[in-house]
Formats: sequence, structure tokens, C-alpha cells
Amino acid sequence: MKLYGFWRSLATYRVRAALALKGVDVQEVSINLLKGAQHGEDYKAINPQGVVPSLQIDAATPPLYQSMAILEYLEETYPEPPLLPKDALGRARVRGLSLIVACDAHPLIVPRIRDYLEKSMHLDEAMRNRWLQHWTLQALQVLETHLAAERATGRFCHGDTPTMADICLSGQVFAADYFNVAITALPTVRRIFDACMALEAFDRSRPLKQPGAPQSLAH
Amino acid sequence: MKLYGFWRSLATYRVRAALALKGVDVQEVSINLLKGAQHGEDYKAINPQGVVPSLQIDAATPPLYQSMAILEYLEETYPEPPLLPKDALGRARVRGLSLIVACDAHPLIVPRIRDYLEKSMHLDEAMRNRWLQHWTLQALQVLETHLAAERATGRFCHGDTPTMADICLSGQVFAADYFNVAITALPTVRRIFDACMALEAFDRSRPLKQPGAPQSLAH
Repeated sequence: MKLYGFWRSLATYRVRAALALKGVDVQEVSINLLKGAQHGEDYKAINPQGVVPSLQIDAATPPLYQSMAILEYLEETYPEPPLLPKDALGRARVRGLSLIVACDAHPLIVPRIRDYLEKSMHLDEAMRNRWLQHWTLQALQVLETHLAAERATGRFCHGDTPTMADICLSGQVFAADYFNVAITALPTVRRIFDACMALEAFDRSRPLKQPGAPQSLAH
Repeated sequence: MKLYGFWRSLATYRVRAALALKGVDVQEVSINLLKGAQHGEDYKAINPQGVVPSLQIDAATPPLYQSMAILEYLEETYPEPPLLPKDALGRARVRGLSLIVACDAHPLIVPRIRDYLEKSMHLDEAMRNRWLQHWTLQALQVLETHLAAERATGRFCHGDTPTMADICLSGQVFAADYFNVAITALPTVRRIFDACMALEAFDRSRPLKQPGAPQSLAH
């Protein structure tokens, strides 16, 4: 199994973390987003959208794409440990929390958006940073409101074992780190992030612990 | 069952179409996004994110949120007719196609983004329209590339019965209509959109056929 991704990519992080939690071995292939490798013909033959991640199961199977679709595939094919609860309402809650990040926040801060704001809209760095910080913080505030109020919240977003929602939440906290967004006012988000990182599978999946990440930033 | 939504909302359309395809009755409650009703305290008690749709199953159950999480819930609780194939790879393909729209395209054109581009970034209408058209078209081009090349494509996105991917594709074609994006160069997308609209469940779920939609635009 081959995971095409990039150290910094938060969508890649989601798949890496899910594979690590489920104990599935994968070979990672780096597609350097900072050098535009995702737009090359070689990679577009794997992923026509020119985005990471893609998961190649084997040579006979077309690569899978879209991180949340990949997570659902892994859940169906490697069910243990589960990353979704068993009951339909619980599953809806975990997916809902996940998609607050995966649909409504993360796609606003990815390289193609940052490029468009800079090169097509000619917005200066201060305005671009305001955009990145605004949407990154907003999603985490919405998560905090849900998580702090709802009885289904436990040590993790849903009960006491990690789910897809924790994978998405922790990725969004990395985004906050990237863009200097303080999350001190979000105690439940912070607590759950810390609970995630206390697990070896999450910790070794961190963007800044991947090959290619700048060593000066690793923590 | 109550669906909080808005006639124009494409995420609401997804849930409305899924319910119609599955033959589930629902009462729709309009949250007027054009008047900012989604930001009111009443609605935020239902959906802290202040977005539509929300699906209230009954008075005892917290409302569900995020359209794709709601679609998965409906698939689990009203399995017939299925909106996902049975095999894990097919399910991954349908979810992947769906999320190209639901994660990477639609969240870029929703009211809160249009408001931010106008009121916080002070971009003029021409530049805002370029943004809306660019991301709307790009997702449909990616879908066309997948659908035209892949053998799993049938009368619909995946085989000969509609799935979540057709719901997402058709919503994105409505977005193209809203923003005057020509899709003449996307024959597979157009063909599948037409196949969807030939079904009564899709046709009566169209945004422009809902109460409140401007009659002059209905088609």
C-alpha cells in the first residue's frame, strides 16, 4: 500500500494517523507541494485533481482519493480498532464533527487557495494571513462549542477512544500552529488534542515529525 | 423529521434529494440565509455553526449537521434504495467523487465566504465572481476527467442507479447555473445531470422549485 502525500499536508496527516491507529503498514511517497509536484503529469495520472493524498492499494486498483473517503474505506476494510462508533446517531455526530473541519475549514487554507489569493487576487500577506487565521479559528471555535456542551464528549471527541473526529480536530490544531492562531480560549479542543498526542500513533503521524519537515520547527 | 434549510442552499438540496430518493417524508423549515437568519440565537441553538442544513430526527435527539454526515446517517437508517454501492472500493469511489464537490468546491462559494470576500477583503464584484466561477468550474472539470475515463461510470456517476455522487454532482451544476459558468465542454457531467433531473425525486428537489425561490428563475 502506497500513500502519496506530503509532510505538511493535513489531509495526508488524516490518512497517516488512521493507518497508524489501525496498525496498517504503508509506504509514503512524497509529492512536494511547495515545488508544485502535485501539478505534474506523473502525479495527475494518479490523482486528476492534483491534490494529496492518494492511496494506492495495489497496482491493479485505481488509487483512492479524498482523505475522508479513504478513512471510510479503511474503516470498512480494517475495522479494528474502530474510528466510528457503532450506533447511527453516534456515527453521524463523529462524521459531523469531522466534516466541520474537512469540508468547511481545511479546504479554505490549502496551497491552491493560498496561491489564488496571492497570484490571482493580488492580496497582500497581511490580508492572506487574516483569511487563514479567521477560518482556522472559526472551525475550532465551533468544535469547542459542540464538544464542551455535549454529553457524548469524553476523553476524546466521542467517548474515550479516538475516532475520525479526533483525527480531524488534531489536524486543525496543527493548522492553528502553522498560522499562529492561539487556541488558549478553547480548553476542550486543547485537552482532546493533548489526549491524541499522548498516543504513539498520533504522535508519530505529526506533520513536523515526517521526513522533509524543517527540523527547526519539530516539537 | 424536520429539515432546517433554505431553498437556495446546495447542502440542503443534497439532504432533500436523498430523502426524496429514499421516499422519506420531511417537514422543511426555511432559515433565510439572505436575511442572516442562520446567525440568530434561535437557529444557533439548533446548529452552533450557524449553517444549514440541520436534520431534527425527533425532539429527544440532538439535530444532525453537515450534509454528508446526514446522507451517511440516512443511508444507514433508510438503506433502500442504496445511495452507496455494496463493495468497499465502489463506496470509496462514490465518496471520493462526492467529496471533490462537498469538501473542495462547495464550501468556497457559500454565503459566509461571499460575505467575507466582500465585507472583510473589500473585493469588487468582478473579482468575487471570478472566484466563484473558478472554483465551481474546476470541481466540475475534475469530475468530468474522472467520469469520462473510468469504467465504473454508467448512466449515473457509478453504475446505472443514482448515488451520493450524483446528488453532489447535480448540486454543483446548480452552482454553475447560479454563477453563469458554462459547462458545455463537460459532456459527461451534463449527461449525468440530465439523467438525474429525469428522475422525479431529483427534479422536485431542485433549489428553484422550492417555496421562496424567485419564480422568474424557475426552470
